[in-house]
Amino acid sequence: MYPEILAHIKRYVQLSPQEEELLCSKLEIQKFKKKQYILEPGKHCAGNYFIVKGLVRQYYVNSKLNEQIVQFGLESWWIADQDSLLNHIPSTVYIQTIEATEVLLLSEKNRILLFEQIPKLESYFRVMMQKAFIAAQRRIGFIFNQSDEERYRYFTGLFPDFIQRVPQYMLASYLGFTPQFLSRLRAKKV
Amino acid sequence: MYPEILAHIKRYVQLSPQEEELLCSKLEIQKFKKKQYILEPGKHCAGNYFIVKGLVRQYYVNSKLNEQIVQFGLESWWIADQDSLLNHIPSTVYIQTIEATEVLLLSEKNRILLFEQIPKLESYFRVMMQKAFIAAQRRIGFIFNQSDEERYRYFTGLFPDFIQRVPQYMLASYLGFTPQFLSRLRAKKV
Repeated sequence: MYPEILAHIKRYVQLSPQEEELLCSKLEIQKFKKKQYILEPGKHCAGNYFIVKGLVRQYYVNSKLNEQIVQFGLESWWIADQDSLLNHIPSTVYIQTIEATEVLLLSEKNRILLFEQIPKLESYFRVMMQKAFIAAQRRIGFIFNQSDEERYRYFTGLFPDFIQRVPQYMLASYLGFTPQFLSRLRAKKV
Repeated sequence: MYPEILAHIKRYVQLSPQEEELLCSKLEIQKFKKKQYILEPGKHCAGNYFIVKGLVRQYYVNSKLNEQIVQFGLESWWIADQDSLLNHIPSTVYIQTIEATEVLLLSEKNRILLFEQIPKLESYFRVMMQKAFIAAQRRIGFIFNQSDEERYRYFTGLFPDFIQRVPQYMLASYLGFTPQFLSRLRAKKV
C-alpha cells in the first residue's frame, strides 16, 4: 500500500479498502537518483507518474538549443507527457530528476483497466486534468500580463520552499528569462 | 436531439441511443446575438458550453485595462471558465460572442448527474480536459520559443479559415502583441 497516493486521491474521491488495494496493486514503484531521466524524446511515455518523494522537471530543447522547462513536479504531483499518452506518439520532452526521486508509475494500460473497475478514478483524473489546465491558463495570463520581475516575485511568493530546492537557472528557464536577469533580480535582496 | 454534439462525442466514446437521448434531455440550447455576453466577471460559470454554431472569445481585462484573450471557441468546441466551475468561485473572465452564436449548455449539476448514469461521459470530459491542457502547454512553448512573427505565421497556417472570421485586434490580443505590430506583419503580404 502506498499511503501518499491514497491520501491524495482521498481529497477528491472516496475509495473502499478493496479499491485502494486494487489500485495499489497496479502501481509500480520506481526509484531514480539525482539527474536521471524518467522519460526522453523519441520514447513513448509509459504512463502517469505520481511523485512520492523528490523533485523532477519536464523540459524540451528548443530550436536555439536552450532547455525550456515546461513544468516542475514535486511530492504528491503527477507528471507525464500527456500528448504522448493521449495521441500515442513518441515524446518530445525530457522528464529528469532534480533530486533523488521515488515515483509510482500508473501505466496507461493499467489506468484504463482501473477506470473500468473503479469509475471514480476516472473522475479523479478528470479533475487532475482540469486543475492542470487551469494552472496552464493562469500561467499564460502571467506571461502576457506580468513583467519578468512581477512573475518572479509572484512565483516565489506562492512556492517559497520549492524555490529553495531548485537551481536558479532552472527557475529562470521556467519563468522565461535568462539566468543573468534572475541574478540581477536576486541581487536586489528583496 | 442535437446531432452536432452527438457526432463530437462519438469520436471518443460510444453511447447507446438511450444514453444519447438522456444526454440531450439535459442540455439547454441558448442563442446569442453578436457581441452578447455568455459569462461576465463576478458571476458563477453555469456549466460547459458546447458551440453548435458561431464564434466566441474568452478574455479578461488586465491591470493595464487591456483585453487579454485567453481562448477562442468555435463550432464543436467546448468553452467554460473551468476555474469557476471546479472551485465554485465567481468568474474573472468574460465569454462574449464574436458572431451570432448557438450553444448547448450542460450545467454542472446536470453534468454530475450524467456522470452517474453514463460513466463513459466522464471519460469523454477527461479527454477533453487532457486535450485542452496539451494545447495550453503547447501555447506556452510557442510564447517562449517563437518570435511574434513566427507565432503569427504558425497560427494562421493552422487555422486559415478561422483567421478570416476574427477581427485583427482580437487575434493580436490572443497572440500577445499589439494590433500595430500585426498590421505591419500583414502589410508584408505573405
